Amino acid sequence: MSWQDALNAQVRNGRNACRALARAGTEQKNCFLSALGERLRQMTPDILKANAADVAAARRRNISPALIDRLILSAPRIEAMVRAVSEIRVLEDPVGRVLWETVRPNGLRIRKVSVPIGLIAIIYESRPDVTVEAASLCLKAGNAVLLRGGKEASRTNRILAEALKRSLEDASLPADGASLVLAGGRRAVRHLLTREGEIDLVIPRGGESLISTVTRLSRIPVIKHYKGVCHTYVDRAADIGMALAVSFNAKVQRPATCNATETLLVHQEIAGAFLPRMAEKFREAGVRMKGCPAARRLIPEAEEATEADWSTEYLDLVINIRVVPDIDAAIDHITRYGTRHSEAIISQDKNAAAQFLRDVDAACVFHNASTRFTDGGQFGLGAEIGISTDKIHARGPMGLNELTIYKYVAYGNGQVRS
Amino acid sequence: MSWQDALNAQVRNGRNACRALARAGTEQKNCFLSALGERLRQMTPDILKANAADVAAARRRNISPALIDRLILSAPRIEAMVRAVSEIRVLEDPVGRVLWETVRPNGLRIRKVSVPIGLIAIIYESRPDVTVEAASLCLKAGNAVLLRGGKEASRTNRILAEALKRSLEDASLPADGASLVLAGGRRAVRHLLTREGEIDLVIPRGGESLISTVTRLSRIPVIKHYKGVCHTYVDRAADIGMALAVSFNAKVQRPATCNATETLLVHQEIAGAFLPRMAEKFREAGVRMKGCPAARRLIPEAEEATEADWSTEYLDLVINIRVVPDIDAAIDHITRYGTRHSEAIISQDKNAAAQFLRDVDAACVFHNASTRFTDGGQFGLGAEIGISTDKIHARGPMGLNELTIYKYVAYGNGQVRS
Repeated sequence: MSWQDALNAQVRNGRNACRALARAGTEQKNCFLSALGERLRQMTPDILKANAADVAAARRRNISPALIDRLILSAPRIEAMVRAVSEIRVLEDPVGRVLWETVRPNGLRIRKVSVPIGLIAIIYESRPDVTVEAASLCLKAGNAVLLRGGKEASRTNRILAEALKRSLEDASLPADGASLVLAGGRRAVRHLLTREGEIDLVIPRGGESLISTVTRLSRIPVIKHYKGVCHTYVDRAADIGMALAVSFNAKVQRPATCNATETLLVHQEIAGAFLPRMAEKFREAGVRMKGCPAARRLIPEAEEATEADWSTEYLDLVINIRVVPDIDAAIDHITRYGTRHSEAIISQDKNAAAQFLRDVDAACVFHNASTRFTDGGQFGLGAEIGISTDKIHARGPMGLNELTIYKYVAYGNGQVRS
Repeated sequence: MSWQDALNAQVRNGRNACRALARAGTEQKNCFLSALGERLRQMTPDILKANAADVAAARRRNISPALIDRLILSAPRIEAMVRAVSEIRVLEDPVGRVLWETVRPNGLRIRKVSVPIGLIAIIYESRPDVTVEAASLCLKAGNAVLLRGGKEASRTNRILAEALKRSLEDASLPADGASLVLAGGRRAVRHLLTREGEIDLVIPRGGESLISTVTRLSRIPVIKHYKGVCHTYVDRAADIGMALAVSFNAKVQRPATCNATETLLVHQEIAGAFLPRMAEKFREAGVRMKGCPAARRLIPEAEEATEADWSTEYLDLVINIRVVPDIDAAIDHITRYGTRHSEAIISQDKNAAAQFLRDVDAACVFHNASTRFTDGGQFGLGAEIGISTDKIHARGPMGLNELTIYKYVAYGNGQVRS
């Protein structure tokens, strides 16, 4: 059998699993998740062994340490996976919610009810924990899932996919509801992306180039989780103590995340009082600073920020600082360089805050709080499959509800249209 | 200026109009729609003159009569446009709805609020009424719109676009909020579809080949309104009188629409009692029948249905008829040949109905009612920009609410993440 035939069969089997998954009740899906947690624990030695082989092979191929770090599993990391599965289990079932209901003058009763999307393909890189987390979320929302992970993690993913399949069987659900795409190498991704009508949604998880390649090649709808070039704007009416604490947190607390702030915008009237103190805190934390000329006059050690810097997602202890003449200039800067992810204003002026929250086009906008809060858990939405930077279907933290769509169910007694 | 530069400038201007449109209040948007209605009335002689020139040019180019029919405007057709605009005016503003709200344990108050999507490109064929209706819907939802109509309608569309721009100005809204793409011919579409990050959504309206070309070329999210191969299933427990009336209506009332039924599925236990009577009604209405062998034994004049027939959207007085052994076979047939648009079951058996409504994967499923009801107006949703056959963002009739997305707005008092 050619790799294309193998892949087509896998897609078809996933598609065929959709009906049983769509009608599975909450208990049955939770039973799968319980089984999965247990199996992951039981299979820990096998998982670690496969992972060690993946890591050794990656080292032989001189793969970057950052990538190897994302690839490595340990007993505590597997325990964290089990916890994540258990957290998904207790989340409310997103299927079957009545979103809207009406009775028409002709007596037709129409309900808009949430249903699974269908077959979802997750295309990701080396992190094997994505295999378990993404599949658990998709399956809890009643979807079938095709998992196309990185080659580096293939041994680990094979064992994890086996745990998924066996756990589905434990819950009397079709094992084809989750399957790992192994055939075809790089060409497999390209081939998958042409199976419109069979695969309903593609979610790429990984770096910018992966996402952009998938977007370019796909005929299937894609939801993108692009980079976060996030800003914190310190308004002239900011409380300086709050501005220092929130800006520091937004940059330093966990700089490698997409919701960390990359650029600080400061109103010119507060720059003199605020920036030297801010710079001192950043300096102590080892944050490298890059600034516009006005910022550099107040922070002598700041380097000159280049045009490219304003668009850079550092994911590191580096920050751009720009002094702006007013709030409009701050919003214009964000409109130009931001990635519509997470943006914050620090101000005691309610009108300024209202203008910022209204006019900044981003998934999440914050008044007097850190951009770091953009997160399904922090929002109380539970686990998330990513943070969408798209503007259709889902925006911001994408949780279980966003892994469903709806259908209209109409109940009549012989109505015809005249 | 090259056509690419002209097009890029147009996209940029549309993008720049987004902020003012997003913050426009309901009154201001309604003021635009009132002005548009008036201007269309005033400009009727100019519109008809431009349209006559388009029609004459189309006739010289031997364009098909069906296409010319869609191109022709008349005073009553313009009056219908004005009515459509006025109906959109009275619809509720979809922007600013609070969809969800929470206060987190740390005091952060988070609101999920509906906002416009941004810049939407509508790519359509010869119907000039789409220019006015699609733009009115997009603008009422606070979006800017790029209109790429068919070449045949370019003179008409130019006048209509002028009415749109002047009416935007009447309401102190940016004229760039609506603009007609004329530069670049066919290459313009291809170019537009690469402007990801600037255009937020593409909606193709037209035939299958237009939609499929757009889907293949686009890097921007597309919402598809594909064809409707819709089914009516007459269950063994159907009320025969109701089954006759509903099936007849679903096929005959307006066969050229996407929600008309193309295939009748009939349970074998009721086929003998039902099909000869059904055939008689169809015969009287001039409906051409194609059947499976079992159906043809009951309807001697029915032709043999080919494999391709089961997937054909006739949009005409032609119907496929298949006798099925049970409801499962009916659902399997729909899963295989349906386009997930509109599907109906006629049955007095509540369990059979529940199974059908649950297991059939389609935008709209009906119990004891005609598939012809799939329509924004019939559902009480108001005007629609189309009927989505996609499974993300919007499904079924796509109205004003579906032309918005949301953002999370978070109000804090200095919260940082620990």
